[in-house]
Amino acid sequence: MNRLGHEVLAAVLQVRSRSLQVLLWQRAREPQAGHWALPGGQLGADEDVETSVRRQLAEKVDVRHLSHVEQLAVFSGPDRVPGPRVIATAFVGLVPSDNDPVVPADTRWFSIDALPETAFDHEAIILRARDRLRNKLSYTNLGFALAPPAFTVSALREIYSAALGHRVSATNLQRVLSRRGQLTPTGQTVSPGPTGGRPAALFRFTCRDIRITDPFAVLRPPNARR
Amino acid sequence: MNRLGHEVLAAVLQVRSRSLQVLLWQRAREPQAGHWALPGGQLGADEDVETSVRRQLAEKVDVRHLSHVEQLAVFSGPDRVPGPRVIATAFVGLVPSDNDPVVPADTRWFSIDALPETAFDHEAIILRARDRLRNKLSYTNLGFALAPPAFTVSALREIYSAALGHRVSATNLQRVLSRRGQLTPTGQTVSPGPTGGRPAALFRFTCRDIRITDPFAVLRPPNARR
Repeated sequence: MNRLGHEVLAAVLQVRSRSLQVLLWQRAREPQAGHWALPGGQLGADEDVETSVRRQLAEKVDVRHLSHVEQLAVFSGPDRVPGPRVIATAFVGLVPSDNDPVVPADTRWFSIDALPETAFDHEAIILRARDRLRNKLSYTNLGFALAPPAFTVSALREIYSAALGHRVSATNLQRVLSRRGQLTPTGQTVSPGPTGGRPAALFRFTCRDIRITDPFAVLRPPNARR
Repeated sequence: MNRLGHEVLAAVLQVRSRSLQVLLWQRAREPQAGHWALPGGQLGADEDVETSVRRQLAEKVDVRHLSHVEQLAVFSGPDRVPGPRVIATAFVGLVPSDNDPVVPADTRWFSIDALPETAFDHEAIILRARDRLRNKLSYTNLGFALAPPAFTVSALREIYSAALGHRVSATNLQRVLSRRGQLTPTGQTVSPGPTGGRPAALFRFTCRDIRITDPFAVLRPPNARR
C-alpha cells in the first residue's frame, strides 16, 4: 500500500475581547518560516487521532482549559504541504471565555477576522472550524463550551454575538435557550455596575455535554429524554 | 515522518423494504475472507479523499444514484486492521428509496438491524453513519436524499420511520416539515388504492442541497435567507 504521512491539527477557538479568536504559533523553520500555524503534529505509532491531538495540544496550551474537542474534517489535497504527501485530520477545540491559558512565547491568539499570514492550508481549516461552531450553536447546546460556568444573559449575548459574527438580541437569546431547556438559573445575582439598575440573574448551562437541542419532537423516539 | 496506509470507506445507506440498509461486499481473500465489508480502498497518489471515495464507489454502484455524500469521521485505532497500519477516512452516502442500483455479484444490501459478520471495524463505521443520518434528519433537510423526487406524506412517513428506527406520525411529520419550509406541493395527486379514499397530494423537497433547517432564528444573521 502507498504510504503517506499523517498529522493532526487543532483549531482552538475562544471568545476573547468580544471577538472569536484562534490559537496559532509562529513557525521558526522552513518551509514557511514566520507563517502562523495551527498546533499539532505527526500521528504517533501507538495512538489514534483523538489521543494524538490532545497530546500535541498539551505542548501549546493546558488542555484542562478545553471544554470541548471534536473531529472537524480530513484535509487531503495531494499538494496541501510541500514535500512528501501528508494527510491532516483537523479538530476543533473550544475554551470558555473566562479562561486565559498560559501559552508559549511563539504562540498567540488572533481574531479570525484579522488573521496573520497563515501556513499551508491552515486558513481553510480555521474557517471550516468557525463555520462548524456557528452551525452547532444553532442546533446544539454548544454555547456551554464558550461560556463561563455562570453568566448573565447580557454576558452570554456578548459571547454568542462574537462567535456568530453578528449582533444577537439578549431577549431572543434568553427566550430560545430557555425554551430548549438549556439555561438554568443559579439562584444568584450580580450587583449592577456603577451606573445602577437592578441586579442581574446568573445562569448556567443545564448540560455540559454536547447534544442536539432541536425541538423537532416528532423525530425523537417516543420515550426519549429531553 | 512515520508513513502510514490511508484508505477511504463509504457506508452507503438506503431505505429499502421499510428498513434502513447498507451496501456491503463479501471479501473473497484473507484476511477475513467471507466477511462483509464497506466499499472503498486505498487513497490514490493524485486524489483527495472525496475524489477517491467516488472513484472507488463507482466499482460497486453507479454513483449517479448517490443523492448525498459527506465525510463521516476518521477511524485511526493503531490495530484497526491486521498488518501494517492503515488510517480510514469514512464517508456516508445516501441513495433515494425509488432507486435500485445494479450491484456486482459480491455485493448486497443488508438491514442495519441484521448485519452479517462484518470485516475489521466496519460495523462501528456503519453504526456511526446511521447515527449521523438520524441526527441530521432532525436539524437539516436531509430527508431529500432518502426520498424520491415526489412523494405522498404517507410514503415519506415510511421513509422517516425506517431511517429513524421508530414510528413517526404522518400528521406531525407534515406539520414540522411544512413549518420549516421543507415541503412544496407539486400540485399533483395520486389515485387512492383499490380500498378507495381521497386522492393523496404529492410533495417534493423544496431544496435538494443540504442545509440546516433549525428555526432558531435569533442565531441567524439579520438578513439571512431562510
